Amino acid sequence: MKLYNAAMPAPNPRRVRMFLAEKGPKAVAAVELVDVDIMKGGLRTPEHLARNSVGQVPVLELNDGTFLSETVSICRYLEGEFPDPPMFGRSPKEQAFIDQWTRRVELRLGTPAGMFWRHAHPFTAKVVVPQYKEFGESNREHYNSAVKWLDKELSGRIFVAGDDLTIADICLLSLVDFADWIGLKLSPDAGNVKAWHERVSARPSASA
Amino acid sequence: MKLYNAAMPAPNPRRVRMFLAEKGPKAVAAVELVDVDIMKGGLRTPEHLARNSVGQVPVLELNDGTFLSETVSICRYLEGEFPDPPMFGRSPKEQAFIDQWTRRVELRLGTPAGMFWRHAHPFTAKVVVPQYKEFGESNREHYNSAVKWLDKELSGRIFVAGDDLTIADICLLSLVDFADWIGLKLSPDAGNVKAWHERVSARPSASA
Repeated sequence: MKLYNAAMPAPNPRRVRMFLAEKGPKAVAAVELVDVDIMKGGLRTPEHLARNSVGQVPVLELNDGTFLSETVSICRYLEGEFPDPPMFGRSPKEQAFIDQWTRRVELRLGTPAGMFWRHAHPFTAKVVVPQYKEFGESNREHYNSAVKWLDKELSGRIFVAGDDLTIADICLLSLVDFADWIGLKLSPDAGNVKAWHERVSARPSASA
Repeated sequence: MKLYNAAMPAPNPRRVRMFLAEKGPKAVAAVELVDVDIMKGGLRTPEHLARNSVGQVPVLELNDGTFLSETVSICRYLEGEFPDPPMFGRSPKEQAFIDQWTRRVELRLGTPAGMFWRHAHPFTAKVVVPQYKEFGESNREHYNSAVKWLDKELSGRIFVAGDDLTIADICLLSLVDFADWIGLKLSPDAGNVKAWHERVSARPSASA
């Protein structure tokens, strides 16, 4: 398989690389990384748009030549290929709760971080217009209040969805690090999130 | 099981009701609907926040008393309880592509529709402040261009993810109807989306 990839700080390809690293060397070896040069318009070439009409990375090229997009969907496919350790849950109940947490991370924390990046960050101002700056800035508060909400939820928990590392943790790590990079720092009183962040960042897969 | 529910035009509980209707009478009978009065602050009561700290519906109360949130996660759980007809796919490959389409519907069409509703709609102006109206209005164009993109993608296809009705169709129907209700009409030249919309709206489950 081939993964159309982009280097850090791009948060989405990182999620797939970390997922593969958690699955182990056999999974890592099964997927060839092909870098797409985002800064040089690589997402808008006819070749890349044929892989993903949305013009984003990551894209997974399956062994039969089919192209699959959407980070979590790619990981879901790879879960089928490399079931151990399970990161989307075993039983339907586990699967549903891990899915709930993944969605909460993406929707509650990811949306305001994304809107801040799109509408308030000086880098984006150079490439995507128009920005609605006041709206963009308002997302700082939404991100902070989502972190505060998450901090309560993580009380007494090792990982986002329970005792095991799952796709929800991978989504959260990539998001928190990206948010930090664009200027949305974790609030100093988010002790549970910070402890979780240290725990997950210490894993070798975090630097994949 | 109990589904904490809200009537139309609320788009999210409708997705679960339609999902159950597609699964058949046994599935419908297994889930008791409990209406939450959104207009009277029912999402912010201590009872409801104990079910879902995010303060949203739908919430599914499982037979063991656990509460599960997030519409698609609830449907995913119900898929395990009522596997036929499969609406999240059979093989890992089918599952991954249905997931990709569900996410594309939610992220590419759902995000601009939601931002328009939140920031440009007069109804929301009464209850959620502040609105960033110019930003809100800009989402009309994003929604339209996402519909245009989808229209190309649906060319020659019966349902969003292929030949069978899946969770991706349920998400799209609920979204397109909600968007229409808030003033985002389907562009007249979106012929494939319109044909798809007529096809899915004609199913008895669409009025569940």
